[in-house]
Amino acid sequence: MACDLNSDLGESFGPWPMGDDVAMLDVVSSANIACGFHAGDPAGIFRTVKAAVERGIAIGAHVGYRDLVGFGRRNMEPTREELFGDVIYQIGALQGIAKAAGGRVTYVKPHGALYNTIAHDERQAADVIRAILAIDPGLVLLALAGAPVVEQARAAGLTVVEEVFADRAYMPDGQLVSRRQPGAVIHDPETVAQRVLVMARDGVVQAIDGSTVKITAQSICVHGDSPNAVAMARAVRKALDEAGIEVAPFAPARP
Amino acid sequence: MACDLNSDLGESFGPWPMGDDVAMLDVVSSANIACGFHAGDPAGIFRTVKAAVERGIAIGAHVGYRDLVGFGRRNMEPTREELFGDVIYQIGALQGIAKAAGGRVTYVKPHGALYNTIAHDERQAADVIRAILAIDPGLVLLALAGAPVVEQARAAGLTVVEEVFADRAYMPDGQLVSRRQPGAVIHDPETVAQRVLVMARDGVVQAIDGSTVKITAQSICVHGDSPNAVAMARAVRKALDEAGIEVAPFAPARP
Amino acid sequence: MACDLNSDLGESFGPWPMGDDVAMLDVVSSANIACGFHAGDPAGIFRTVKAAVERGIAIGAHVGYRDLVGFGRRNMEPTREELFGDVIYQIGALQGIAKAAGGRVTYVKPHGALYNTIAHDERQAADVIRAILAIDPGLVLLALAGAPVVEQARAAGLTVVEEVFADRAYMPDGQLVSRRQPGAVIHDPETVAQRVLVMARDGVVQAIDGSTVKITAQSICVHGDSPNAVAMARAVRKALDEAGIEVAPFAPARP
Amino acid sequence: MACDLNSDLGESFGPWPMGDDVAMLDVVSSANIACGFHAGDPAGIFRTVKAAVERGIAIGAHVGYRDLVGFGRRNMEPTREELFGDVIYQIGALQGIAKAAGGRVTYVKPHGALYNTIAHDERQAADVIRAILAIDPGLVLLALAGAPVVEQARAAGLTVVEEVFADRAYMPDGQLVSRRQPGAVIHDPETVAQRVLVMARDGVVQAIDGSTVKITAQSICVHGDSPNAVAMARAVRKALDEAGIEVAPFAPARP
Repeated sequence: MACDLNSDLGESFGPWPMGDDVAMLDVVSSANIACGFHAGDPAGIFRTVKAAVERGIAIGAHVGYRDLVGFGRRNMEPTREELFGDVIYQIGALQGIAKAAGGRVTYVKPHGALYNTIAHDERQAADVIRAILAIDPGLVLLALAGAPVVEQARAAGLTVVEEVFADRAYMPDGQLVSRRQPGAVIHDPETVAQRVLVMARDGVVQAIDGSTVKITAQSICVHGDSPNAVAMARAVRKALDEAGIEVAPFAPARP
Repeated sequence: MACDLNSDLGESFGPWPMGDDVAMLDVVSSANIACGFHAGDPAGIFRTVKAAVERGIAIGAHVGYRDLVGFGRRNMEPTREELFGDVIYQIGALQGIAKAAGGRVTYVKPHGALYNTIAHDERQAADVIRAILAIDPGLVLLALAGAPVVEQARAAGLTVVEEVFADRAYMPDGQLVSRRQPGAVIHDPETVAQRVLVMARDGVVQAIDGSTVKITAQSICVHGDSPNAVAMARAVRKALDEAGIEVAPFAPARP
Repeated sequence: MACDLNSDLGESFGPWPMGDDVAMLDVVSSANIACGFHAGDPAGIFRTVKAAVERGIAIGAHVGYRDLVGFGRRNMEPTREELFGDVIYQIGALQGIAKAAGGRVTYVKPHGALYNTIAHDERQAADVIRAILAIDPGLVLLALAGAPVVEQARAAGLTVVEEVFADRAYMPDGQLVSRRQPGAVIHDPETVAQRVLVMARDGVVQAIDGSTVKITAQSICVHGDSPNAVAMARAVRKALDEAGIEVAPFAPARP
Repeated sequence: MACDLNSDLGESFGPWPMGDDVAMLDVVSSANIACGFHAGDPAGIFRTVKAAVERGIAIGAHVGYRDLVGFGRRNMEPTREELFGDVIYQIGALQGIAKAAGGRVTYVKPHGALYNTIAHDERQAADVIRAILAIDPGLVLLALAGAPVVEQARAAGLTVVEEVFADRAYMPDGQLVSRRQPGAVIHDPETVAQRVLVMARDGVVQAIDGSTVKITAQSICVHGDSPNAVAMARAVRKALDEAGIEVAPFAPARP
């Protein structure tokens, strides 16, 4: 029995650190690495990628909108040509860094507003899919479990892995509780760890109304930049380890 | 008998065009493509790379300092880690775009202040060389003919191609006349075309004092963004064609 | 009888020129000057502002979204705090440059997507209005004639000047014909000049269906960056001059 | 008896915090506020400026090279026109934000590489001085005590305040010990506090060789972004308070 843990890393920029990449790399199996558009500078990205390669952690291109000050969290409306180019550019840049660090990029996870937008916006999703197919159709797309983009990308020929969130509450229909609702984010590491254990072992999650929701995810996202990110990630990992559930990447960097 | 003509392309940015890439691609054999740090946005870079691939033009990564407003023409002092990372990032990004366009990057030509600095600055040259070796040791370095970096890069294991400038005056010792001197840049297309013809056929150039200087270049740079760039490039190409000298890339994109 | 002609200027960036600012400054009475977020670098902005001050042309802050590669033409969703800060920052920067050039900023015209958004989006409009009030409530807002923002800004205490577009077609209800419709933009300088003359003299414009629409604008925008921008602006100016209609700023830089 | 304490603030950027501005504002009398080129985004700058205004802290424009990823710490070679424009633009932007927050900018302190360069580089110093004179000759320049720029700026008509560094070691001739030397930076808060007390009370500092050096500074810089910055600043402030030395700005924001 196995499951993948992924986290957003490489998000420092110049003099500004973010998160503790090395600590998180000892916990997760897949690292979503910022590619310079919403976060990440080349020297810092290289350091994180190198640390990931040394630990055998899978490397994903965490591509985002070109909005550094907004951290890629603001909705934008790039043209088809712009979004296509921006995604290829970012994946290529990370592929170059991964190659220089002795590894390779095996998947793509859009970030922030782009992640949320392509979950349901068919046009922007199509541009991202087309970009991935153009640079390397073997790259796996990591996407929001149950979102329309999952089928859209599969229909276009991509392998898609669905993910759930370790610390987010779910609606009875499997949708995320909006961050604007109370209880949308779960802060207690032990509670989160137990939820993840149930997700990985039983393929279900307890919804915010107490009902049980079936989930089909192959990867679980643990956040890397909240104040207690490392503590929470370690609690999750410990629970999985103790339950004998192997933590392994869905798309290994060195097959 | 053959010679390579190279030019700086892909230097538009967002709403701001620069040069006439398509016209230049019908003249040159190698395209130095901006990688986004001194110029070039992904959508525009993709258009130019696609046009280059369609014409069988060799594609080089025109890597520069991270200085968009200064167009990479201002001296900077990145740390070793920064310069190493910046070069890899830019090459990788262009490799991704080339792959998506059906081609590949076969050489690297540093741009502007980085080009001039590494010609003689051993430390920055070492960082650029190390970056190229890390991402792909098969990439050819296109460098200033006769500069110290040529030997430094060869000693490190890179293949180096030396270049001369079609429209620049030379000193009797083979160095470029400084742009601050009168007569440093030659503006008449016919004069430039005849100089290039002599360079390609006889391996010499007439220096500013009238003496003859031996040159060992395998590539000739024609500028792409001056007002009469296209006219001059066409005059150069015509002179070579009429003399039966083949214009061919030193590092073909599709071998 | 008088009317104001305004145009977007100062939109060069580093090595990339845009438009012919000096030629346009000899035609218009108000210069909307880019403030560095969608276009314009400080040295270039200073040159254009200085030329405007020398000619007694009114200076407006052409504030935009922080999106250089997209030229501020892509919709964005800044937070209230971000938009408020961005507008103040840009106005302040231009005020500094105007002061150094011997002039002053007398009005604000949002640019591109921000212009279109605040025309009807009450929240973003409120942030822009609040920013202008915070930095200088004496600044005039130049806005789309007839748009909801006009009343909203007046209710908040700002002086608002409404503008129409010299080269755009209008609907019978006074709205602009969408750029996606055929005939939305009028390209013939003489036709444009005659329309402007009628606008300035009679306060009406012929709509796309041939009907006559009353307009209440106090300023007419002539575009500065289209291929024949200068020719069109000169035709407009000539028509007004010959009709004896004075071209004068609504908010003079040196009162 | 009085002395000024200044610190670099407003250096967060988008999602990346830096330092604890509010804590530092309760200790210092003058706040050097980043202006967006080396650090600082408008919304964050506004928050810090507002907190400074509320506390009656003097506001200085901390102008830097346009190098966000390098945090303005890398030497650059802007042209005269570029440096002049960049300094005016940054001061103007901060003036706008200060005005909106109910305060005003009363001094200018160049940052990082620009600070070090103009200390001795006459050309870049002249451009910065010219820019300050152009936007507001009443702005005080805060500069490295004893550096050539002090006399150059005074000769040009600026008021100059000289500063020393609380946590830096000095040579017997009054120069800073290079950061590359051991002992260049003093880390113990109590030692730093005692040194500052002696500086403020006696106008001298103990040099690294044990000798006593006369200093003529009117302001003391305490760093704001080191790990124990707040603890050190508080120790300095406590020592001054207990010695009855008033901490007051050299250029009050609200005179």
